[in-house]
Amino acid sequence: MLAYGGGSIKKTGLYDTVKEILDAGDFEVVELSGIAPNPRIESVVEGVALCKHHQIDVILAVGGGSVIDCSKAIAAGVYYPGEDLWEMVKTSDHLQKALPLVDILTLSATGSEFDGGGVISNLKTKEKLGGLFTYPTASICDPTYTFSVSSYQSASGAADIMSHIMEGYFSKTKDSDLSDELAQGVLKTVIKNLPIVLKEPDNYSARANLMACASVACSGIPEYGKASTGWPCHAMEHELSAYYDITHGVGLAILTPSWMRYILQKDPSVTWRFVRFAKEVWNLEDQDETKIAYAGIDALEHFFKEAGIPMRLSELGIDDIYFEEMARHANRNGRLSNAFVALNEQDIVEIFKNCL
Amino acid sequence: MLAYGGGSIKKTGLYDTVKEILDAGDFEVVELSGIAPNPRIESVVEGVALCKHHQIDVILAVGGGSVIDCSKAIAAGVYYPGEDLWEMVKTSDHLQKALPLVDILTLSATGSEFDGGGVISNLKTKEKLGGLFTYPTASICDPTYTFSVSSYQSASGAADIMSHIMEGYFSKTKDSDLSDELAQGVLKTVIKNLPIVLKEPDNYSARANLMACASVACSGIPEYGKASTGWPCHAMEHELSAYYDITHGVGLAILTPSWMRYILQKDPSVTWRFVRFAKEVWNLEDQDETKIAYAGIDALEHFFKEAGIPMRLSELGIDDIYFEEMARHANRNGRLSNAFVALNEQDIVEIFKNCL
Repeated sequence: MLAYGGGSIKKTGLYDTVKEILDAGDFEVVELSGIAPNPRIESVVEGVALCKHHQIDVILAVGGGSVIDCSKAIAAGVYYPGEDLWEMVKTSDHLQKALPLVDILTLSATGSEFDGGGVISNLKTKEKLGGLFTYPTASICDPTYTFSVSSYQSASGAADIMSHIMEGYFSKTKDSDLSDELAQGVLKTVIKNLPIVLKEPDNYSARANLMACASVACSGIPEYGKASTGWPCHAMEHELSAYYDITHGVGLAILTPSWMRYILQKDPSVTWRFVRFAKEVWNLEDQDETKIAYAGIDALEHFFKEAGIPMRLSELGIDDIYFEEMARHANRNGRLSNAFVALNEQDIVEIFKNCL
Repeated sequence: MLAYGGGSIKKTGLYDTVKEILDAGDFEVVELSGIAPNPRIESVVEGVALCKHHQIDVILAVGGGSVIDCSKAIAAGVYYPGEDLWEMVKTSDHLQKALPLVDILTLSATGSEFDGGGVISNLKTKEKLGGLFTYPTASICDPTYTFSVSSYQSASGAADIMSHIMEGYFSKTKDSDLSDELAQGVLKTVIKNLPIVLKEPDNYSARANLMACASVACSGIPEYGKASTGWPCHAMEHELSAYYDITHGVGLAILTPSWMRYILQKDPSVTWRFVRFAKEVWNLEDQDETKIAYAGIDALEHFFKEAGIPMRLSELGIDDIYFEEMARHANRNGRLSNAFVALNEQDIVEIFKNCL
């Protein structure tokens, strides 16, 4: 089964290349197209039905994280014994078998090409949930396939990469030296290469660095030995996407500086971590620890702005009417009470409001 | 099959713990003991025969890189169709099947717990060759199992880790930003944590950082996008070990600064890479590029010396009588003619001599 999204691979010619290779190899191919950003459970249901009907042997996902995430859920769904695939997403820890999945990556962002997870949305229940479905058997990561990615998508992809790092980096653990070094290394590489990509979309070296960063960022390796943080910005952003279907990386870029300022004010005892972030990632210097901590956050926000990301929720047509409901969802099972700085629902509402 | 080395796991109690767990799980266990540092082809032959005779399902390797390397070769050897397992080592690229291998790591050094390679020695032919045999199905990496490792072995393990990074870092490629950052991060983490381990052998955090460094260093990830370098210090060290059976990490520690000074003098156009090494890894500053380049090498040598590693081959009882023969072997098939700075046999002899 050849799975892809809204058809950008047809515009770029990648679709034709893939079809030619598959034809030359005498593969029997069934297509699943139209997988949306924030992929829907309906696509999973459709894909599983196709796979079962056609007795598919391998899924070939061509696209970005959404296509790969959706294909992972399909690969596992084929062997899911129950009827309700949304239930499968909710209980994915128990999955044990999946069809082999190969992907051709076209967007440097989620790192789905290098991990076992996927995020699926259910617009009816307004839920966007992550699950562990299967690891790709092989991922074809060719930076030239990302040359045609727009500035907007390149920047939001980079924000997603950086968020995957920052969610783990801002942890209570002080002695994971290697993880901290790797995390800083990924961030510095993105900070250097995204501006190059925005100026020169077909700069191979810059695109390649972003592509490698995406894979490493979400691999778990830069979090070795770190206390769990609950990934608060992802928890909050998944609500934004579930309610408003916005671009994931844009939501993360907006939320992250706001979340940082909020927790730094709520619990100044975490200043040390922000000082390290400012010094090591942004090369900032200041005698005053509080000053440098906030300067690091400003630098991050400035970086996203310069990359052309809209930095207010209001620019995306979002107002505050669902914030309390979204905050309840984001903190389901009290998952953010163990975050780097514990967050309750009122905290989350405040963070959302500060993003308006 | 439970595979282990010279019996240190019996002294530490790990052997008893493992046996208790295996007994409780009702596993039928066959033992292969006495796997030597620089593991011999004879152990591979013995292990393969044991596995075949007892129809072994899984190999459990308990030890450091030598035990795991040897177990990998055994796992693949069980399915090798030929008679001559040394031939298998020489042609391992073609292997396609292996027994599942699980390991319990007791030494932070080779990274064999996180890659597919292994190095096997043939003392009769004076060869020490690397092959690609199989990846571990699972590696149990518990830093407490390394608390009892001696200062000498801890230091030489750290030198091995650093060498795995430096072999790739000193490459002609200038634009692998992520790889350079990750490489520097691993080096800085080892430089910080080895001295702690030498003072406090049971410092969990320092042991854990070294253990994570070992796995990442040899994973291939810090070499993403780098031009192949031929790993010259490993090529030369494998000759030292093959001829004199010395500790791998010690050989690397002795060779590396000597190799660095030699190539920097031979080809000053690579100074830029040494400047980066000095600045980013050793935090050195100087206006004069040549000066700072050599200062970085001095810092590395000083670090190894401070860690208690003997830094002259003569201290290990090695003289120059085999140097020309070893140089020919190290450069078999002209493999070092594509190194970061190309080396011929005369160069290698000079580097060996400078280590006396």
